[in-house]
Amino acid sequence: AGSPEVVPTCERYAVRRLPFARLADGDVAFFERLMPGRVVTGEEVKPFNVDWLKSVRGCSQLVLKPQTTAEVSQVLRYCHERNLAVNPQGGNTGLVGGSVPVFDEIILSTALMNRIISFDKVSGILVCQAGCVLERLNEYLEQQGFIMPLDLGAKGSCHIGGNVATNAGGLRLLRYGSLRGTVLGLEVVLADGSALDCLASLRKDNTGYDLKQLFIGSEGTLGVITAVSILCPQKPKAVNLAFLGCQSFAKVLETFTVCRAMLGEILSAYEFMDEKCMELVERHLKLSSPVSDSPFYVLIETSGSNSTHDEEKLNNFLEQAMASGLVSDGTVATDDMKIKALWSLRERITEALTHDGYVYKYDISLPVGKLYDLVTDMRARLGQSAKNVVGYGHLGDGNLHLNITAESYSHSLLDAIEPFVYEWTARCSGSISAEHGLGFKKKQFIQYSKPSEAVVLMQRFKAMLDPKGILNPYKTLPSAP
Amino acid sequence: AGSPEVVPTCERYAVRRLPFARLADGDVAFFERLMPGRVVTGEEVKPFNVDWLKSVRGCSQLVLKPQTTAEVSQVLRYCHERNLAVNPQGGNTGLVGGSVPVFDEIILSTALMNRIISFDKVSGILVCQAGCVLERLNEYLEQQGFIMPLDLGAKGSCHIGGNVATNAGGLRLLRYGSLRGTVLGLEVVLADGSALDCLASLRKDNTGYDLKQLFIGSEGTLGVITAVSILCPQKPKAVNLAFLGCQSFAKVLETFTVCRAMLGEILSAYEFMDEKCMELVERHLKLSSPVSDSPFYVLIETSGSNSTHDEEKLNNFLEQAMASGLVSDGTVATDDMKIKALWSLRERITEALTHDGYVYKYDISLPVGKLYDLVTDMRARLGQSAKNVVGYGHLGDGNLHLNITAESYSHSLLDAIEPFVYEWTARCSGSISAEHGLGFKKKQFIQYSKPSEAVVLMQRFKAMLDPKGILNPYKTLPSAP
Repeated sequence: AGSPEVVPTCERYAVRRLPFARLADGDVAFFERLMPGRVVTGEEVKPFNVDWLKSVRGCSQLVLKPQTTAEVSQVLRYCHERNLAVNPQGGNTGLVGGSVPVFDEIILSTALMNRIISFDKVSGILVCQAGCVLERLNEYLEQQGFIMPLDLGAKGSCHIGGNVATNAGGLRLLRYGSLRGTVLGLEVVLADGSALDCLASLRKDNTGYDLKQLFIGSEGTLGVITAVSILCPQKPKAVNLAFLGCQSFAKVLETFTVCRAMLGEILSAYEFMDEKCMELVERHLKLSSPVSDSPFYVLIETSGSNSTHDEEKLNNFLEQAMASGLVSDGTVATDDMKIKALWSLRERITEALTHDGYVYKYDISLPVGKLYDLVTDMRARLGQSAKNVVGYGHLGDGNLHLNITAESYSHSLLDAIEPFVYEWTARCSGSISAEHGLGFKKKQFIQYSKPSEAVVLMQRFKAMLDPKGILNPYKTLPSAP
Repeated sequence: AGSPEVVPTCERYAVRRLPFARLADGDVAFFERLMPGRVVTGEEVKPFNVDWLKSVRGCSQLVLKPQTTAEVSQVLRYCHERNLAVNPQGGNTGLVGGSVPVFDEIILSTALMNRIISFDKVSGILVCQAGCVLERLNEYLEQQGFIMPLDLGAKGSCHIGGNVATNAGGLRLLRYGSLRGTVLGLEVVLADGSALDCLASLRKDNTGYDLKQLFIGSEGTLGVITAVSILCPQKPKAVNLAFLGCQSFAKVLETFTVCRAMLGEILSAYEFMDEKCMELVERHLKLSSPVSDSPFYVLIETSGSNSTHDEEKLNNFLEQAMASGLVSDGTVATDDMKIKALWSLRERITEALTHDGYVYKYDISLPVGKLYDLVTDMRARLGQSAKNVVGYGHLGDGNLHLNITAESYSHSLLDAIEPFVYEWTARCSGSISAEHGLGFKKKQFIQYSKPSEAVVLMQRFKAMLDPKGILNPYKTLPSAP
């Protein structure tokens, strides 16, 4: 982390520092008094300045690690008063440069806000602080017969507060829906330090406007999420996984239609990856494919309450898929070890890509029928100038992860990709960011997915809630004119 | 409808007309030119002034029936300019006085905006105008192998735009989640007549703030919803229903825990009603109970993709529930006719109540264990001064419908109920409106479920989006100080 080769963001991109105050010795002294021993300065700040992809780097000199909502309030009240910019940071696993500073913003880390506040086994409602790590929460819940409604590759590091702030999607969305439905309450500290308690633990509550929704997916630009109330499903008694090879993308699509009809309510994931992805996880991570070489691979997961019924449904589906030639090869797993091994082929693609060179990442929503055409078109367009052009993602949600690797970052390659990829997406009424958010890297492209009236309204909300613009500046929205 | 005994709202309640302009002949002439033949005046306005419960009555002189978003825009631009107040109205099935005027607001009806714009069978995404009747949409979808993700007793009259504006819950929420997750896009006309197009048809889209969420559940006070994009689940191949008798509320709760574990992913409804509810549907609607008299009744619905598996799960559950004495009597339905008949016992309670006299309606979210204590406490408190005190609702969602009937409206009975019912709810951290909204009747009680900072923030959103306050005035929020 913090490796010297990462070019500072403010040098690589044309961006000007906004007229925030600069950190003074008196400020550090204030924070030291407020939270002694939890103020990070000097060399130790480095890893907080660089994103997980090592694609952007800020130059913050200060990391604060509050433990309570009251401390977050005091920090923001002070920064608001002093006009100091603040970069809220969870597990720092974001992929669009939203979680690290652009200039010298103070980093407000939720790392020490990791307390589980309550869990009710009757309703399945969990209330916890924002800094709880997703995987820890899931382990805690599994002991009580429940699971988190979301799961993603970064689960070992990402914080639930960051998940909510970015409206994370991930691997279970197909089954349990988005955070907009499962998050029941939030506690948020606003830019001026005032706390907003919307931490209800009720499945239904129609008393006034649903303020918490505005903070879900706002990437820390409207407030700092300090606690979350979330509805958790029961842990399924039976989980089965099928890993299949398909000879064309058309067959991937047809397999989806058949499997959705035959697996119905037990279908919990339908993921796909192309042969390039498989090559990369084999080469860089030494994983091995469980099925014979195919142009496309599909991962199907079922989760249900009765293993006999689930296996029967899955076997009926597989028989039909094989007999009709939709699927050319496949393997099935019912035990935990093999399930984990098969999932890692899909989950670790992101990691394999980082070993392949500099990665240009695109996270696109498209009508499912056109999903792979973008990969094919991009591959033809870039030719030899890219090292690899790969496609994978959450097919069941219409979500493509398009990734392009090269030996190193290059302006000219970026120009060949953008805005082509966004124009292509806009022509299909897709979204230029399905789940990653806009952060720093995508904010100037928002108009490809949102009309200007909507962007203006977003800017008015930002101005209302954060009039000085101190919260995660340079992120999510293009600057107001 | 419009029966003479309904006391005008402005007489029954202490409320003062805000200084909006009064309707002039020139205004009516303008609207007649804009939408000839779709401007209602005189006697025909009457039914639009009175709510379904006949509990509130406005004195509007004008109903407008636009067919397009452009017409809604022109109406609002004109009203905004002229400072004329507007009451958006869907199927007028609301239960808190949110759908009819308080004074002389112009009624903007979505009755003629009933066009289905598109339906995609691969993704299950429906796009339609706001005035489509919920039941018509469901019938249309069923022909294509899908269903609407929500269902409620008023389905034959309510409009999808009104459902979204009130964040309707209903009978399928337990299975398919809330509208916050299933509504994918909205088109909204703001108070000044400008249209906001957030009508995306994508399962995932993280490009900027999710503006549409602010309009979901805002009861027409922030904008007029003109079109909706919504994710629809596949029509289940098998539906089963069990109607059971329980000897105590404790057994109702325990039955829920057992059934959730044993039915898992196929459980699609868990409803309860007390013996008083059964008496009312028997007496007023001549329905007959299918099981022997019990203090409580439970309706359990399963929806799944394999009838053999589903029936096996349901039978296993019923055997255990009977053997362990949780359930004392019961009947099961698998054919459509009998399923509908059993559902009507639960769905038509609201209708039976209206035949019993004036109805005081409360729609409360509570921790499920305490749900029925409120009914018992209220019954004891009111004694002979109430005709009936009944409890029923969506137990699986922690949602109690508490209803009190009396021969006619009485201030003193209301004073005995309120604020007692709200204080009781607040002590349990419940919600004073789980799904009905606040409308006109509950807006002054918002502080029992929301902190004052949240209410102030809501008022700032209202002031920003509707600075003249012309949209559905006197509703949802207490007046700003």
